[in-house]
Amino acid sequence: MRINAHYLELKDDYLFAEIANRVSAFQSAHPTARIIRLGIGDVTLPLPRTAVEAMRAAAADMGETSTFKGYGDYPGYAFLREAIAGYYQTKEIALEMDEIFVGDGAKSDLGNILDIFGPDNTVLIPDPVYPVYVDTNVMAGRRVTYVNGSAENGFLPLPEESLHADVIYLCSPNNPTGAVYSRSGLKRWVDYALDNRAVILFDAAYEAFIHDPNLPTSIFEIEGARRCAIEFCSLSKTAGFTGVRCGYTVVPRELTADGVPLNKLWLRRQATKFNGVSYITQRGASAVFTPDGLTEARANIAYYLENARLIREALSEMGIWFVGGENAPYIWLKCPNGLGSWAFFDKLLTEAHVVGTPGAGFGQNGEGYFRLTAFGARDNVVEALARLKADF
Amino acid sequence: MRINAHYLELKDDYLFAEIANRVSAFQSAHPTARIIRLGIGDVTLPLPRTAVEAMRAAAADMGETSTFKGYGDYPGYAFLREAIAGYYQTKEIALEMDEIFVGDGAKSDLGNILDIFGPDNTVLIPDPVYPVYVDTNVMAGRRVTYVNGSAENGFLPLPEESLHADVIYLCSPNNPTGAVYSRSGLKRWVDYALDNRAVILFDAAYEAFIHDPNLPTSIFEIEGARRCAIEFCSLSKTAGFTGVRCGYTVVPRELTADGVPLNKLWLRRQATKFNGVSYITQRGASAVFTPDGLTEARANIAYYLENARLIREALSEMGIWFVGGENAPYIWLKCPNGLGSWAFFDKLLTEAHVVGTPGAGFGQNGEGYFRLTAFGARDNVVEALARLKADF
Repeated sequence: MRINAHYLELKDDYLFAEIANRVSAFQSAHPTARIIRLGIGDVTLPLPRTAVEAMRAAAADMGETSTFKGYGDYPGYAFLREAIAGYYQTKEIALEMDEIFVGDGAKSDLGNILDIFGPDNTVLIPDPVYPVYVDTNVMAGRRVTYVNGSAENGFLPLPEESLHADVIYLCSPNNPTGAVYSRSGLKRWVDYALDNRAVILFDAAYEAFIHDPNLPTSIFEIEGARRCAIEFCSLSKTAGFTGVRCGYTVVPRELTADGVPLNKLWLRRQATKFNGVSYITQRGASAVFTPDGLTEARANIAYYLENARLIREALSEMGIWFVGGENAPYIWLKCPNGLGSWAFFDKLLTEAHVVGTPGAGFGQNGEGYFRLTAFGARDNVVEALARLKADF
Repeated sequence: MRINAHYLELKDDYLFAEIANRVSAFQSAHPTARIIRLGIGDVTLPLPRTAVEAMRAAAADMGETSTFKGYGDYPGYAFLREAIAGYYQTKEIALEMDEIFVGDGAKSDLGNILDIFGPDNTVLIPDPVYPVYVDTNVMAGRRVTYVNGSAENGFLPLPEESLHADVIYLCSPNNPTGAVYSRSGLKRWVDYALDNRAVILFDAAYEAFIHDPNLPTSIFEIEGARRCAIEFCSLSKTAGFTGVRCGYTVVPRELTADGVPLNKLWLRRQATKFNGVSYITQRGASAVFTPDGLTEARANIAYYLENARLIREALSEMGIWFVGGENAPYIWLKCPNGLGSWAFFDKLLTEAHVVGTPGAGFGQNGEGYFRLTAFGARDNVVEALARLKADF
């Protein structure tokens, strides 16, 4: 038996392990130092009460013969798909039920969707980038080319007409930079995809952090996107579901290749290699889309965005260049004094006892940059910023 | 962009759709007929009370800051992996924590595991078979060869030394036949796999139905299996988790190819394309492995096995040849009077108003056979059997 040799081409996934090692070494040498983590990519506030109550009731359903649920539909229960369609309606986007697929998270679907594409496609990925876009394609042996994010384009690269691509990754609001594409920026990408007969894999996991009404929260707000884009979204950051696992993927009916609807291929993939999401989880997710659920989820997001505002304010006062943090939980800053990402990491850790994420871990254009996140507790954010201002 | 052209080679997945169409047509034509379904592959009894309570408590945990859980470890929480290791200990099988991977079901893991194997492996699959073994390999363009189940070998085919294989599927207790391999049968497969440097993908989803102490419930009861086998198991049939979604996969440390531990490849696959199973689900699953949980789960299995016993008894009285149903929820019978699978399906439906599953849907060796399942309610099973005895 032979292994998939492409796995041997993967780079070691060492970013967060290396961070943990350095933090642990410092803490051992300085046991009294109170380290504050502003590098965390996970939510910290508890779930909306309505989601908790819905899941408790659903668990009880599973204990009674009359309300017990076995296998559900592969693409998800109608009650949840209707709730998701209702959410899109508030964005003035009309979806059919068979365009919506409930899954166990955007990460799973973003990885698994590649199953329906041939290995001989050229993949275009912005740098810096969420590392799994690259790794999942390396695993399949696909050619990967990059477009460059930079301070000059505000880390929102636009298509280069000279470059051909078949599969394009976009993430807006962006992880790791927090930058958000405008409608005209996304229109450029949609037009480019249509010209290249390419598909855009649009990662909208952070869409709920957009409060500026001029910014698009879905690729399907852009004309032509239904013929070239798949959208991935998640309850993880919208409602704190990182530990509950529920996402959804929208594959429009118009999206075809060689006359084959991708929608049907994805349904076949899911029916063959997946068995749906827990009924309990789906009840919790559908509760998030009720008026009470949305109000509670948005209160949590407002808390994180206030953290982000405090971080932006402090960086501005310190004269440090940054993007993000306005409609996103991530703030992407230029390391002061021309420091490299890891040098700044060490300085921040040893002098301010604050932990962030070196930008170099997200691609070569990340070198010299640094990611802070807004997912911490308010007291810690305030304390960390006071230390930064005192030390830099 | 080009699609994965192998998807076009898939046969239409029409078995259960065709059954639904025929049943629906008959019911329309005979609105007063009370149709009983003995074809159902899903559980019907509610979850063990201890699992429900654990999930209700876990959902409440997610609503409080102090007990909230975000991302879990990719391979599953330690509390669940320890519970699974404890379950294996009762089988006198010692597992290390890093050999156990919690997933969202055996079907997902059986499909996704193929990611770590190259496309140029030869896959050996018994016929009749659970269709997703075939489809997941067709999707990847792998060569599939078959070994033949038949009445002569009791639908427990053994390896043919003349045939080379790299990846071997075994399912015991078997879906669809309910046949269970003996230790000596499995030993033949393990020896063959070691000789061929092949890997056995051992689907143990129905292991909890084995009550005969002479039959192996895990491939790891067989000497040498740790060097050639991966085991897939699930709470779906063990504890009624078909709608909750929790399984586990065991990849022993000794299992390597070209010096690479498959364990590490699978961890990398899961870390890249999966984000773990819901904390709530994992709490429910670990409750199943407590003494109370096991007692309740086994009571449900005893109920299904009594259904199976009644079906076997009736078939014996009628002089119909069958296998299975003794340590499995499936009974695989030879259609009486030389009927084909679909002809018998129609006869059973129109004369006895009973629905089963045509064996032809599980491969060419299934033609002329028929699957009944023990997952129905007792009253329905008794009534269906009375009709069978009256009509045949």
